[in-house]
Amino acid sequence: LALQLRNWSKGVLSQLSSCNSHGRVSPVLIAQQRNNSTSQKIQVDFDQSTGVAVMRMQNPPVNSLSLEFLTEICINVEKLEMDKSCRGLIITSDRPKVFSAGLDILEMYGKTPERCAEFWKAVQEMWLKLYSSNMATIAAINGSSPAGGCLMSLTCDYRIMADNPRYTIGLNETLLGIVAPFWFKDTMVNTVGNRSTELALQLGLLYSPAEALKVGLVDQLVPEDQVLTTATKTMSKWLAIPDHARQITKSMMRKPTIDRLMSNRESDIKNFVGFITKGSVQKSLGMYLEMLKKRKA
Amino acid sequence: LALQLRNWSKGVLSQLSSCNSHGRVSPVLIAQQRNNSTSQKIQVDFDQSTGVAVMRMQNPPVNSLSLEFLTEICINVEKLEMDKSCRGLIITSDRPKVFSAGLDILEMYGKTPERCAEFWKAVQEMWLKLYSSNMATIAAINGSSPAGGCLMSLTCDYRIMADNPRYTIGLNETLLGIVAPFWFKDTMVNTVGNRSTELALQLGLLYSPAEALKVGLVDQLVPEDQVLTTATKTMSKWLAIPDHARQITKSMMRKPTIDRLMSNRESDIKNFVGFITKGSVQKSLGMYLEMLKKRKA
Amino acid sequence: LALQLRNWSKGVLSQLSSCNSHGRVSPVLIAQQRNNSTSQKIQVDFDQSTGVAVMRMQNPPVNSLSLEFLTEICINVEKLEMDKSCRGLIITSDRPKVFSAGLDILEMYGKTPERCAEFWKAVQEMWLKLYSSNMATIAAINGSSPAGGCLMSLTCDYRIMADNPRYTIGLNETLLGIVAPFWFKDTMVNTVGNRSTELALQLGLLYSPAEALKVGLVDQLVPEDQVLTTATKTMSKWLAIPDHARQITKSMMRKPTIDRLMSNRESDIKNFVGFITKGSVQKSLGMYLEMLKKRKA
Repeated sequence: LALQLRNWSKGVLSQLSSCNSHGRVSPVLIAQQRNNSTSQKIQVDFDQSTGVAVMRMQNPPVNSLSLEFLTEICINVEKLEMDKSCRGLIITSDRPKVFSAGLDILEMYGKTPERCAEFWKAVQEMWLKLYSSNMATIAAINGSSPAGGCLMSLTCDYRIMADNPRYTIGLNETLLGIVAPFWFKDTMVNTVGNRSTELALQLGLLYSPAEALKVGLVDQLVPEDQVLTTATKTMSKWLAIPDHARQITKSMMRKPTIDRLMSNRESDIKNFVGFITKGSVQKSLGMYLEMLKKRKA
Repeated sequence: LALQLRNWSKGVLSQLSSCNSHGRVSPVLIAQQRNNSTSQKIQVDFDQSTGVAVMRMQNPPVNSLSLEFLTEICINVEKLEMDKSCRGLIITSDRPKVFSAGLDILEMYGKTPERCAEFWKAVQEMWLKLYSSNMATIAAINGSSPAGGCLMSLTCDYRIMADNPRYTIGLNETLLGIVAPFWFKDTMVNTVGNRSTELALQLGLLYSPAEALKVGLVDQLVPEDQVLTTATKTMSKWLAIPDHARQITKSMMRKPTIDRLMSNRESDIKNFVGFITKGSVQKSLGMYLEMLKKRKA
Repeated sequence: LALQLRNWSKGVLSQLSSCNSHGRVSPVLIAQQRNNSTSQKIQVDFDQSTGVAVMRMQNPPVNSLSLEFLTEICINVEKLEMDKSCRGLIITSDRPKVFSAGLDILEMYGKTPERCAEFWKAVQEMWLKLYSSNMATIAAINGSSPAGGCLMSLTCDYRIMADNPRYTIGLNETLLGIVAPFWFKDTMVNTVGNRSTELALQLGLLYSPAEALKVGLVDQLVPEDQVLTTATKTMSKWLAIPDHARQITKSMMRKPTIDRLMSNRESDIKNFVGFITKGSVQKSLGMYLEMLKKRKA
């Protein structure tokens, strides 16, 4: 369970108040785009000449993963997945200073169990689609990426992060008294190993880019204005590998982890709904939301 | 199976002959202690204002884990576990130059199978209680920590070691022709990964503090006189995390390893007793004990 | 599935055309050899005074693992395994610049399914014999070691590689549109962990010696002319450990991985034969062989 809570612990909100928007798309790339699809909150630029799609998240203010936003992500990923000419996917943010702030806390507060279950199913769906994608996937992490944002990054084949010490990344759920579910944990263990995961999840660690690189949470750091261009260059290395061999190999590595959620989806939903609708958990979420409101004011 | 054998390989005994005792407890800490319990070989200082207990091992000369000592450890840990106001446990040594020398070899030499089984059950019990503790646990490793001493450290959530190059830590059982059982191995794999464990267990490696830090066997090195104060400061970071979320997370990480011993306790005991009561093993233990006697003389 | 393909990607062939042969065996070692056995393609020098056998691969030009060569390796390893006086095995190459180029692609091209199955069974057998060996095994990697050559290195207890930046090592199967089977993958995960394996196998990474050391694929780098002498010195450390304890420990670490292939040998063979005899795969192997011929001309 991931929440939109780094604001609380790291003062992201105050950072956001002074945000400006940098142009991150080079004119050349735009010129090459042949086949673009744009929804309200997701912009997909697909370059047929390279077979690479860039998916930009633009759900103001901080790309929180609401039910609606998750559904849009899933629909867009599925479309690309079914398009055989699309071989690579780069995920990045169109919002300044944040990749994604994680699951939308408003989806968990004061909602019916049915609605909570629907929301959680969408979180599972997003993870399943991305972690098992046949496309080569690269996260171009151009801002902070806590909780659900970190999870989304971890589903990718490769992670490039902006080398800005004000950004952080990590599964920090315990900071709010919440617990990352087993498949968040499995994904992190697959990436950084058992011990680093135990330490990070127990303490709700948010890593600076340099720390994230050292522990293996991201693969590469680059200056902020080179995140997307580096992702594009890196993608060409991935696409030099025959798709079929790369896909079978990826599936061999990830299938046990995917199967584990697939065969426990219902109990995982029940578990989430039972936990999140508890009086004590609702109360602390309410207090947290109050605090956010006061900060904004 | 862990033995009190580093003496042999590393000359700890000669070190011990020149030992002196440093005061490791600051006056401030002592003043804050509200609720102390002292047994013969274990001193527990519980500070109700912080919720942290410090457990000092004082079983001369080298905190060997005898049946009696293991039983005392288990009783004390269980008491703290049941006290809801105790949230953190720091384990350290009151003996100079050694954290714990590991399992007491005298418990394995010339004993009946029944007694050996009772001893081994106590070793299992100690591991189970510490590895599954709901408390945040920190090992303040202020001296050498071979074999069973290393195991005890590995059960903790965090390990701080004195940066003294004369100290060593590791699961060095093979050096004496003995084998670490699967749950020693599992605990080490969970901490340093498969390859480092394979290398360390096959060669019976004892690491210097610097090597132990590099391989991930300990988390932090500090000057010898700062081990306990650093542990206390670090504990406050762990206790800043809501207990419930931290405990569920810890259990999620460790349950598979704990379940594996739980469902194999009897066969593991049988295995140990069958091995340790072999003529050839008893003979080599006898020779080792003879050697120790001569050294002392 | 491993192929003899690094030639293609890294220009090993051009290197080989300018090869010269260095004497890698010191006169002293030769003088001590008491019990030598030589077949056409394998030379085994067994030193009874130390209990260590050195197995030299000499299957020109690049120690490709053909059915015949694999069979010779298995026979020689089995002989040493049954000789109780042989406690350690060092595997090295007698060919310049290459340890082993991996599985012989000619064994997979234009062959009947029956022959392919026989070949694959021999690959399994080689891995099973080496990965489960009771001897302490050290790979003295004195040249490039792609694909099946890398696998052979990974079966050993310790890997020492020549510090020559022109050499590479890795499981690079995807580069040719082929996939490393699950037990290649398991062996690599056991050595370098899950994430490095995922990255390496998807991209078909060939590491320089320095990179291989950093990721943990090899344990030590030494100047090219010291690979074998270092292996010999290192072996004496391994043989200082009582055999019985070392063997039980090694088996405890590796048994789950070995059992996994043992209980899936037939389906793994079927899988390989089905894949390799596909028209599309045969076609690309044919094109690759054509390219090799042209290069040689």
